[in-house]
Amino acid sequence: MSVRYSDAGVDLNIAEEVAARIKERVGTGLFGGFIPVSALKAYDAPVLVSAIDGVGTKVRLAAKLGRLDGLGADIVHHCVNDIAVHGAEPLFFLDYLAFHQLELDVVDRIVASIASACEALGIRLAGGETAEMPLVYTPDHFDLAGAIVGVVEEAGIVDGRSIRAGDVVLGLPSSGLHTNGFSLVQSLFSAPEYERYEPSLEATLGEALLRPHRCYLGDIRKLLATGSVHGLAHITGGGIAGNLSRIIPAGLEAQVDLPTPPPLFEQVQARGVETDEMRRVFNLGIGLVAVCDPRMLASIPTPFEPIGEVQPSVNTRRRVSIRDRW
Amino acid sequence: MSVRYSDAGVDLNIAEEVAARIKERVGTGLFGGFIPVSALKAYDAPVLVSAIDGVGTKVRLAAKLGRLDGLGADIVHHCVNDIAVHGAEPLFFLDYLAFHQLELDVVDRIVASIASACEALGIRLAGGETAEMPLVYTPDHFDLAGAIVGVVEEAGIVDGRSIRAGDVVLGLPSSGLHTNGFSLVQSLFSAPEYERYEPSLEATLGEALLRPHRCYLGDIRKLLATGSVHGLAHITGGGIAGNLSRIIPAGLEAQVDLPTPPPLFEQVQARGVETDEMRRVFNLGIGLVAVCDPRMLASIPTPFEPIGEVQPSVNTRRRVSIRDRW
Repeated sequence: MSVRYSDAGVDLNIAEEVAARIKERVGTGLFGGFIPVSALKAYDAPVLVSAIDGVGTKVRLAAKLGRLDGLGADIVHHCVNDIAVHGAEPLFFLDYLAFHQLELDVVDRIVASIASACEALGIRLAGGETAEMPLVYTPDHFDLAGAIVGVVEEAGIVDGRSIRAGDVVLGLPSSGLHTNGFSLVQSLFSAPEYERYEPSLEATLGEALLRPHRCYLGDIRKLLATGSVHGLAHITGGGIAGNLSRIIPAGLEAQVDLPTPPPLFEQVQARGVETDEMRRVFNLGIGLVAVCDPRMLASIPTPFEPIGEVQPSVNTRRRVSIRDRW
Repeated sequence: MSVRYSDAGVDLNIAEEVAARIKERVGTGLFGGFIPVSALKAYDAPVLVSAIDGVGTKVRLAAKLGRLDGLGADIVHHCVNDIAVHGAEPLFFLDYLAFHQLELDVVDRIVASIASACEALGIRLAGGETAEMPLVYTPDHFDLAGAIVGVVEEAGIVDGRSIRAGDVVLGLPSSGLHTNGFSLVQSLFSAPEYERYEPSLEATLGEALLRPHRCYLGDIRKLLATGSVHGLAHITGGGIAGNLSRIIPAGLEAQVDLPTPPPLFEQVQARGVETDEMRRVFNLGIGLVAVCDPRMLASIPTPFEPIGEVQPSVNTRRRVSIRDRW
């Protein structure tokens, strides 16, 4: 009897080819990626800021519809936003891709989309790991995660500590669901429905759902330049209340008047998702929330829009209250 | 009709409880983790070194046997070794855990084991992401990946560039399979076999297979202190030849005399795995290889053992040749 790894469902030749192609993109065949810290020299007291994230089951819908090219932007922008809300500039990114079965073409397209999302933002792709795990992943499925490291001047860290009563709350539109709520969404719609053109979405439902996670780095830089930012929240799983409450200090409450959510969220809601659940799972059209000194109201950079204000808390446990149209 | 996320197999209450517990361990409820870079001030020209890795299907065997507590050491040590072979000292670590279904107890045990592996090495656990993806992972399964960032003095980067003919090749024992070859192994043995005590292993087969990935940071520090290290290779997927060839410069060839592999590898081989496949998949008892100036032979720090030497290459494509007992 003779056993090879391929009998266990793992093809080492494909794994080696994948490694060689990624090595070409990342520019190193070594064990770790090197990042010169000359960029840190411009800082008086640099602080590294890091985050790790996945894109959730959006990968499954992307694979099902054969639309993989947005996944790079999804994972890179999700990670960039998570550190940009603390005032950090991104330095480098690492990706983790794990498959039921490695497919060269799929790996290639996803890694290319990651590399191009990094390049567009001037971020170094410092490394990556690609794994084949037939026993762990369901057939045809894969997972995509990423880690990011950036830097911020210690005195410039944004963490909500300076938020006070009277501050204005600003919102920035999301491009759609970003990377949250895809397990729920995929339990609601059938395969043919994703392909149907929806006039209100100006796209098929599938296209609208797969629009990449929006990158807020440029918007955040513009807002920080006003010198009036007290806190920033990236709206992901947990929704607006769940994420905004992470930065509101005790004794205060952000009161948010939520604009009518875009049509994509109405399509999901129409399938019978409870209102509370919609608020808890989705960004409802607002992907980033900023809390600022009210003196900046006269000159809010576009496309930020005022959506609320901070008041002394009437309920000691509640940090955010939302009035919406639902 | 009314739909909640739990109908799609995702329990947000458990997800929130998991987030709260991890927040306690990581010490921040913010979007990114902060790492002061005061440690970098001691360096003349600091270079950050990063890596991202998974533990492969070892997670599946660990879950099956109810032995999760070594997984933290597995992922942390795998990552630490990947940057330590470049001379880097680890600074901080981030973990990614994704499940078919979140189980509080399992998350708790794994995150506790990660936190304790980091603490033992003085590494900051800067953040983590825990995801529930019922559509992507098979029932009862999960995946564990990690990213690490460390620092090295630019002039002290170890990358094999200074390796030359006449250098000595040293090896360090592994603790077992480390984190490679588990899909193959799990196709060879049946559930009752893992529980059987094997005198040659001084443990059950399952215990021997799950021994955590050994950390080589301390050994590497000792060896670097001799000032004679020209290159270091972490032996993971690809085996000794696959990994050692990553650091051997063109025109040279490392000739390795491999000691008889430990009994655990013989047990696997006895199931009919081809010799070539054994060499390509497993570390065969050597988890770290160092290439050093031969003048240090008189005072090799324990437990390093000489296992070969570097010679001018006779075959332009081959960087490593191995003589073993198989």
